[in-house]
Amino acid sequence: MIVLGIDPGYAILGYGVLETVAGKMPRPIDYGVIETAAGEPFPSRLEKLYLGVRQLISLYKPEQVAFEELFFYRNVTTALQVGAGRGVALLAAQQAGLPLYEYTPMEIKLAVCGNGHADKRQVQQMVRILLSLRELPRPDDAADALGVAICHANNLGPGVEEFRIR
Amino acid sequence: MIVLGIDPGYAILGYGVLETVAGKMPRPIDYGVIETAAGEPFPSRLEKLYLGVRQLISLYKPEQVAFEELFFYRNVTTALQVGAGRGVALLAAQQAGLPLYEYTPMEIKLAVCGNGHADKRQVQQMVRILLSLRELPRPDDAADALGVAICHANNLGPGVEEFRIR
Repeated sequence: MIVLGIDPGYAILGYGVLETVAGKMPRPIDYGVIETAAGEPFPSRLEKLYLGVRQLISLYKPEQVAFEELFFYRNVTTALQVGAGRGVALLAAQQAGLPLYEYTPMEIKLAVCGNGHADKRQVQQMVRILLSLRELPRPDDAADALGVAICHANNLGPGVEEFRIR
Repeated sequence: MIVLGIDPGYAILGYGVLETVAGKMPRPIDYGVIETAAGEPFPSRLEKLYLGVRQLISLYKPEQVAFEELFFYRNVTTALQVGAGRGVALLAAQQAGLPLYEYTPMEIKLAVCGNGHADKRQVQQMVRILLSLRELPRPDDAADALGVAICHANNLGPGVEEFRIR
């Protein structure tokens, strides 16, 4: 099964695509980021993010999508903007009829590093090792998106239930 | 010219549709709210808001869309959710290729009531009077959406420039 992991944002959205393999680590298919320019009008940045996620879904045909939960924004203006980026990414996945899951940064770090307080560098290192990548996945956002996809792949099984996304 | 005013949100999104009339108050065409149920999964609430705004645009064919700027949320979780609702509404208007404008609550109150600190009830009363409505526009969110459309209609003219939406 193909799993799409997303680390949402509005300036940069990370994605990671994995194929699950029974009894083994999932196989990496692709990872990267969708970036939007600070000088561009905000509504057109949202459109670029939305179309980018739609394109990933139509290209890789994932069966499930896992999001990293957003946390701790400096101020309300930032939270409104990041929330809008997350909103259009959720909408794109919802419109494709895919089941959506969400994991906290701590759950992801625990799944990838065995330590809920691992730093960004440790997450990149462990994602590289777990997926046998030749290089560190960069930037952070792409590594985080692979991390949430690994976390979700680890959770799959007869008992898994769709998370409540708020 | 048809102007669509939007008071964004995720549980309730207010809309107001006006037709501008040269040298006179704009003529009310429609107003109301799009509501989403608290029990529904969040991504499907976003889809309902998005489709609702698309439907308003295809029904009334506005040439411009004016948003009320969001302000002062109790906490970051609320700001993330309200930001997502605003995000999908902006996306729907952006995809229709319409110019988008945004006004602060204070600018709207000043335009409608002549007082930037007017309360919700005063806004409803003045919107009713300005648009010669038989009844108070309800709920607040619909009155606010008519208010932002009035505010935008008042601002129209040779010198008007598209606001920077963040």
